[in-house]
Amino acid sequence: MKTLIDLRDVLSEDLQQVLDIFDAELASDLDCVNRLVEFTRDYRGKMLRPQLLLLVGKSFGPLNRHHLVLAAVVEMVHMATLVHDDVLDEAEIRRRGPTINHRIGNEGAVLLGDYLISHSYHLCSSLDSTQFAQRIAAITNTVCEGELLQIANRGNWDLTESTYLEIIRRKTGALTSVAAELGAAAAGASNAVIQRMADFGMELGMAFQIVDDLLDLLGSPESTGKSVGRDADLGKLTLPGIHFLKDAGPRQRESFIAAISAPESSSGDLAGLLAGSDALSYARTVAGSHISRAIQHLGVLPAGDAREALQSIAHLVLERTH
Amino acid sequence: MKTLIDLRDVLSEDLQQVLDIFDAELASDLDCVNRLVEFTRDYRGKMLRPQLLLLVGKSFGPLNRHHLVLAAVVEMVHMATLVHDDVLDEAEIRRRGPTINHRIGNEGAVLLGDYLISHSYHLCSSLDSTQFAQRIAAITNTVCEGELLQIANRGNWDLTESTYLEIIRRKTGALTSVAAELGAAAAGASNAVIQRMADFGMELGMAFQIVDDLLDLLGSPESTGKSVGRDADLGKLTLPGIHFLKDAGPRQRESFIAAISAPESSSGDLAGLLAGSDALSYARTVAGSHISRAIQHLGVLPAGDAREALQSIAHLVLERTH
Repeated sequence: MKTLIDLRDVLSEDLQQVLDIFDAELASDLDCVNRLVEFTRDYRGKMLRPQLLLLVGKSFGPLNRHHLVLAAVVEMVHMATLVHDDVLDEAEIRRRGPTINHRIGNEGAVLLGDYLISHSYHLCSSLDSTQFAQRIAAITNTVCEGELLQIANRGNWDLTESTYLEIIRRKTGALTSVAAELGAAAAGASNAVIQRMADFGMELGMAFQIVDDLLDLLGSPESTGKSVGRDADLGKLTLPGIHFLKDAGPRQRESFIAAISAPESSSGDLAGLLAGSDALSYARTVAGSHISRAIQHLGVLPAGDAREALQSIAHLVLERTH
Repeated sequence: MKTLIDLRDVLSEDLQQVLDIFDAELASDLDCVNRLVEFTRDYRGKMLRPQLLLLVGKSFGPLNRHHLVLAAVVEMVHMATLVHDDVLDEAEIRRRGPTINHRIGNEGAVLLGDYLISHSYHLCSSLDSTQFAQRIAAITNTVCEGELLQIANRGNWDLTESTYLEIIRRKTGALTSVAAELGAAAAGASNAVIQRMADFGMELGMAFQIVDDLLDLLGSPESTGKSVGRDADLGKLTLPGIHFLKDAGPRQRESFIAAISAPESSSGDLAGLLAGSDALSYARTVAGSHISRAIQHLGVLPAGDAREALQSIAHLVLERTH
């Protein structure tokens, strides 16, 4: 099976240009800043959001400068959220290496995240229209709201599925949504098509987060490449847990809350409890329905290699194991 | 003597409009977000940066919508830096009240700072030209660099005066500089005048920071309204310390480093050491020379109440005791 990394081959030259723009934007006249920025290299992963933006753009024809710049912008925003998220989660491992906060301290990590977000706006404001900067800033507003809604619900064992979906819609869906949207907008697509691409990106992002949360509960650091069970440790309920608690008797509920609350709890305890219910398959089904809707939205794109690659990505989001 | 707060009377109606724009921009559909934003009310202080922007604008004639929006933007950027700074400094008191990180935890404070910075760009990108967003983002890049340069030099007892000045130029001067600059730019002033206003704001901001650092070393929480000696506790050298160490013998050097490094050190120990040298008067003289240059730059503005208020502010920056 192809992976998201394999699919990057379709875009390899374009992605290299995106990385060049990314690196040039972050270069400073201060060595101490450049040394910190170097740490972000280890955070580079699948480049999902640039891929979405470029492939949507490519489905309409050759890419333009706006696509490349905006792809660098969405990746920079994403990296800023990773750096600050790891501070918030007190995570120690990401992408199979120590997190930036673990290596340089929370202070440097907060400032590095600020530096990344500032440069993402700076890069975006280099384009000749305010429409892109407006959309990016509106989406980062939403991402912050999603994160704040999440921490407001930490330890809330009565978190509803609809609030969980609202959290992931904002904290993850918003950025994948704007990536796909801007790919179409920069290609000069019609408003109706731009909206369908925003919807595509939203569905894909929500599925991505549901699967991410599943892997967080079940995976090992070796397969996910990051600290496992940290969300759980910190009392964040995700879809399987919400579904489990909805049907759980008082005793099951107590066991689950004990397992998810204990900082020393291994993911094994939680996985064992959840495996005895339909919670895991339920979460996979919900993720699958988001992917089905995402693929339907792709129908508005011109047929071709780019659209096929987007369909493959949608399937891979569901099937990924790390 | 008039204070910065008294001077706000000149602008009271305009500043109220700025605050209305500020509050409207930050309003969310999520209650949990609005509750957090409420905490920022206690961080409102002198509104120095909006005052600079509006008074520079007013010296050319009636203010326009751009002035009011940009004044809200610079205040929002400033507040974001305060919120993240307090996380970095682990400060517990600001403006005579507990800091936001102390009240809601570092996690909420990091995200609230992100929310503020995101909204500052969002507000800025609502203007009909990308020039303002570009300048604001360029300046926030610089502010982050200043902060990073500062933490890279923590515990560096050989910090030079020129590196210290570079730190404060970026972390404080850049934002006061852009405030004065945009006040002129939004009034349609010539490039030469815009540049002089940028220079005015830079000189004023550097003096402000030198005085702030002096008050940090010498003041009490009662008079400064924030935790005292935190910068010192964390091994950040400021101008008096740099000057003291330059001329200090080995024994004085040792005493100074011991006093500034000990987390439990009272500001009294440091103040005693510094008072026995010309370090404090030297720092005041340097601040004074920045203010003299700032006032010279004001000469390019049309004479009138607004220019006089700016001169008063420049004097007050030097004379303030909190």
